[in-house]
Amino acid sequence: MMSKYSIGLDFGSLSGRALLVEVETGKEIATAVMEYPHGVMGENLPDGTKLEVDWALQHPQDYLDVLQEIVPSVVKQASIDPKDVIGIGVDFTACTILPIDDDGTPLCFMKEYSSQPHAYVKLWKHHAAQDEANQLNEIAELRGEKFLKRYGGKISSEWLIPKVWQIINEAPDIYNRADLFIEAGDWLVLQMTGEEKRSSCSAGYKGLWHKQEAYPSKEFFKALDPRLENLVEEKLSTNIYPIGGRAGELTDSAAKRLGLNPGTPVAVAIIDAHAAVPAVGITEEGKMLMVMGTSTCHMVLDKEEKWVPGVGGVVEDGMIPGYYGYEAGQACVGDHFEWFVDNCVPFEYHQEAKERGINLHVLLTEKADQLFPGESGLIALDWWNGNRSILVDGDLTGLLIGCTLRTKPEEIYRALIEATAFGTRMIIDTFEENDISIQELYAAGGIAEKNQMLMQIYADVTNREIRISASSQTSALGSAMLGAVAAGASAGGYENIQDAAMKMTSLKDLIYKPIPQNTESYNLLYQEYKKLHDHFGLGENNVMKRLKRCRRKTS
Amino acid sequence: MMSKYSIGLDFGSLSGRALLVEVETGKEIATAVMEYPHGVMGENLPDGTKLEVDWALQHPQDYLDVLQEIVPSVVKQASIDPKDVIGIGVDFTACTILPIDDDGTPLCFMKEYSSQPHAYVKLWKHHAAQDEANQLNEIAELRGEKFLKRYGGKISSEWLIPKVWQIINEAPDIYNRADLFIEAGDWLVLQMTGEEKRSSCSAGYKGLWHKQEAYPSKEFFKALDPRLENLVEEKLSTNIYPIGGRAGELTDSAAKRLGLNPGTPVAVAIIDAHAAVPAVGITEEGKMLMVMGTSTCHMVLDKEEKWVPGVGGVVEDGMIPGYYGYEAGQACVGDHFEWFVDNCVPFEYHQEAKERGINLHVLLTEKADQLFPGESGLIALDWWNGNRSILVDGDLTGLLIGCTLRTKPEEIYRALIEATAFGTRMIIDTFEENDISIQELYAAGGIAEKNQMLMQIYADVTNREIRISASSQTSALGSAMLGAVAAGASAGGYENIQDAAMKMTSLKDLIYKPIPQNTESYNLLYQEYKKLHDHFGLGENNVMKRLKRCRRKTS
Repeated sequence: MMSKYSIGLDFGSLSGRALLVEVETGKEIATAVMEYPHGVMGENLPDGTKLEVDWALQHPQDYLDVLQEIVPSVVKQASIDPKDVIGIGVDFTACTILPIDDDGTPLCFMKEYSSQPHAYVKLWKHHAAQDEANQLNEIAELRGEKFLKRYGGKISSEWLIPKVWQIINEAPDIYNRADLFIEAGDWLVLQMTGEEKRSSCSAGYKGLWHKQEAYPSKEFFKALDPRLENLVEEKLSTNIYPIGGRAGELTDSAAKRLGLNPGTPVAVAIIDAHAAVPAVGITEEGKMLMVMGTSTCHMVLDKEEKWVPGVGGVVEDGMIPGYYGYEAGQACVGDHFEWFVDNCVPFEYHQEAKERGINLHVLLTEKADQLFPGESGLIALDWWNGNRSILVDGDLTGLLIGCTLRTKPEEIYRALIEATAFGTRMIIDTFEENDISIQELYAAGGIAEKNQMLMQIYADVTNREIRISASSQTSALGSAMLGAVAAGASAGGYENIQDAAMKMTSLKDLIYKPIPQNTESYNLLYQEYKKLHDHFGLGENNVMKRLKRCRRKTS
Repeated sequence: MMSKYSIGLDFGSLSGRALLVEVETGKEIATAVMEYPHGVMGENLPDGTKLEVDWALQHPQDYLDVLQEIVPSVVKQASIDPKDVIGIGVDFTACTILPIDDDGTPLCFMKEYSSQPHAYVKLWKHHAAQDEANQLNEIAELRGEKFLKRYGGKISSEWLIPKVWQIINEAPDIYNRADLFIEAGDWLVLQMTGEEKRSSCSAGYKGLWHKQEAYPSKEFFKALDPRLENLVEEKLSTNIYPIGGRAGELTDSAAKRLGLNPGTPVAVAIIDAHAAVPAVGITEEGKMLMVMGTSTCHMVLDKEEKWVPGVGGVVEDGMIPGYYGYEAGQACVGDHFEWFVDNCVPFEYHQEAKERGINLHVLLTEKADQLFPGESGLIALDWWNGNRSILVDGDLTGLLIGCTLRTKPEEIYRALIEATAFGTRMIIDTFEENDISIQELYAAGGIAEKNQMLMQIYADVTNREIRISASSQTSALGSAMLGAVAAGASAGGYENIQDAAMKMTSLKDLIYKPIPQNTESYNLLYQEYKKLHDHFGLGENNVMKRLKRCRRKTS
């Protein structure tokens, strides 16, 4: 019998990736990546229109261009017959939404809206709807809305409702013209299949939707803004489907563009990080996965629905059927180190890296690895992109303390890494204080794979063993698994995600174990982190918010 | 009649400078600068011996080598007859001390001590005697020592007694072998004249000496450490002379080395910053001079002796005879920006600066000048080198708050500049709260001369006009003025420093005036600065000290 294949599509913050996987073994046969031509638009639209502070947009044409490049590329690389591709899965960043018209066309494709920032895709890290998020939280709390508890007591400015509300506030014409607001992952499925079957994963984690209770009530939306009263019926959708299901099949035109067979099954979309949970083989409680990229998403399963303050969400069957999937996150991890390398590394380090033919992260890591915990005298709050968990506040900003005239770049670099590790420990402690046990950590993503020093710091700070995904494309692998499940066992795929996980996943041999002496030092530093975290994050001194307001006023 | 000349010698943190000045007009005829070959030794002795954290040493041979280079150089440049040099003045950083034997030889010149860090010059910014300073302050307070009040209630780790105490604690053999501990400025005068006539300026500001009350009592020294009971008699000196006086005349051998006439009068040494006060023409109250270099020294005159908490010292006749001279300071100003340029400026900025043929400070300033107050959303505490005034605490460290992923290097650069301006405002406010009026600011030093954006920020933050010294070598000019006074009117010099100031000084035409809109914005930001200053500086959260302790433990 010929092998069967599934394609996992993974749309991240900066690029899209296709992974062609052998269904029976999980063997990764071919991969292709393409960066979005417009990247993240943070300062201007393509035509030069200036964006305000805290905006982060993308161009939906980029998703189509990337799709049409990477899918044919993996089929060609693998030299397989397209008919042996039995399924496609899609994961995407979320909440990443765009306004479209009835036939799925993004408003920004229309000439009259091409200079309108609100017509474009709002990337997850668009943080300009913080005012709306604050108001939403206030009103929801006043009204005693039950849904708040599922999201740790606070809705993030990154999520669906604040983002849509910002549009009606600032560009009511766009709001009125849009027939639908849709997650980019669901939109891509719509482009491939012609079906608008939305993902329960993004709707649940980012859209306030609940399997039993559906969306918040009309009364709630009306209390936000009378214009939003019928938001769900008019601009969203109740076509919401569980992950692990099939959204539809490739249309003729889509199949042609992608070089695949028409009728190839396409899975319901999933959030990128969440696709990684089955892909590292997690199908039970007690094990937290950290997907470490530009940001980190922390995911853990439990058999019951519990309320954990400050975590991003709990969704039934949101990751693995039969479990409640809990999600928390750090808004800035890889981005943090990238910012540092882009902005704060001196000339000599560039020269040294160039001479030795290594990149700056490798150089800085090598230098930082010489330091003991606490040796730099530095500590940071890792809030360069706000705080997602457990404070849920996009208006918080980064802090660095302990600088002297002898502070070296690698010391700051290490302090930033340690700060993200402290942030993760804060999340783990919060889960455990709320009765969700976490015994082991799993990590996936480029950082987890590449930076051994960083992973050792995380093991030391959290005092837990960390296992690493064998795949370097974990989300794409998870998507390919969902593609194989969408195909079903009869087509050579799998009946369910557990079966797929048994056959298609594996871990690296290397396990990071905490070093007791380091753990002890980091326990002390963590107390300092916590004190600063509470002081600046819980209202004793709201200087970060005041400075940010001041910044908005002058810009 | 032929012109007469005076040479001002200005020994700073990194280099020594000679300025040859026409006595009658103050016209600057020739100048020569040489960097200390060993610079500031912060990590190793010349033979590789490792130094601990917070050390800052210099090599006294550098002072002699520099002296022998720069003095002949100005005489040669000016093509004058050495006999027309009627006087020499010397200013030096302080407290910068060294152990010497009876004939003036530094202990570090002796083979048996050349690997002993404590045998070298301890530069003013040697901060490793903080424990001794803390103990001294505690004991002085318990004993109700009156002298504490003169120094704002706290003695700095930078000063004489903590530095000497550190030597007896860590290297008692050096303490025992030393016949004297002496300020480097007084030592240089000794090398030139053979006379040990110490300066009342450094003794008063850095050595706890008082014109009426002399040094602290034997009982006090004994309470510190029984071995220090007779410190003054055994290792210091009571040969202390007012500034404006003559220390002696060039010896034959010194004259030969310097290419001058034997018998040329040499003035009593003065602290480098303090030499600038008469050199900008300040001879009365209400006018504060900021000498802005690696650090900033703030000086103001008043007719009475008042107690100002946290200022560095008040000395009768310490700057201008007939006035009490008040001194405050910021331990890290130019050093701050230099640290930033050395450690935190990305490759692209280096390239841009190189292509345009400008230095990085100019490039960063140009970019930072585009920003409005508050636009960056950043605020910093300027404690990269501890806080000298008004907290007098070398264990405080730098803080930067408000970072985001869009924070640019020029924004941080500007935030560091603003932080130093806020630190200056804190000092001015403290003086005024204690009844010492400050109506106008005067500035001298490289930064004041070069960076217009910085000076405007200072004017805006302090809401005061700022006038700039016409000389770019203000301290050296002040020293030359003191040389002319040491020569006396009969030799073609002056009878007193006021007469010299009338003839020899001038100011630039450019006056920086506060811009009301900026002042208003900075008033708000200053409130944030003050809140953070008090929180981290006054004990609410001593995280900086704990981190520093942690750093010492691991190093």
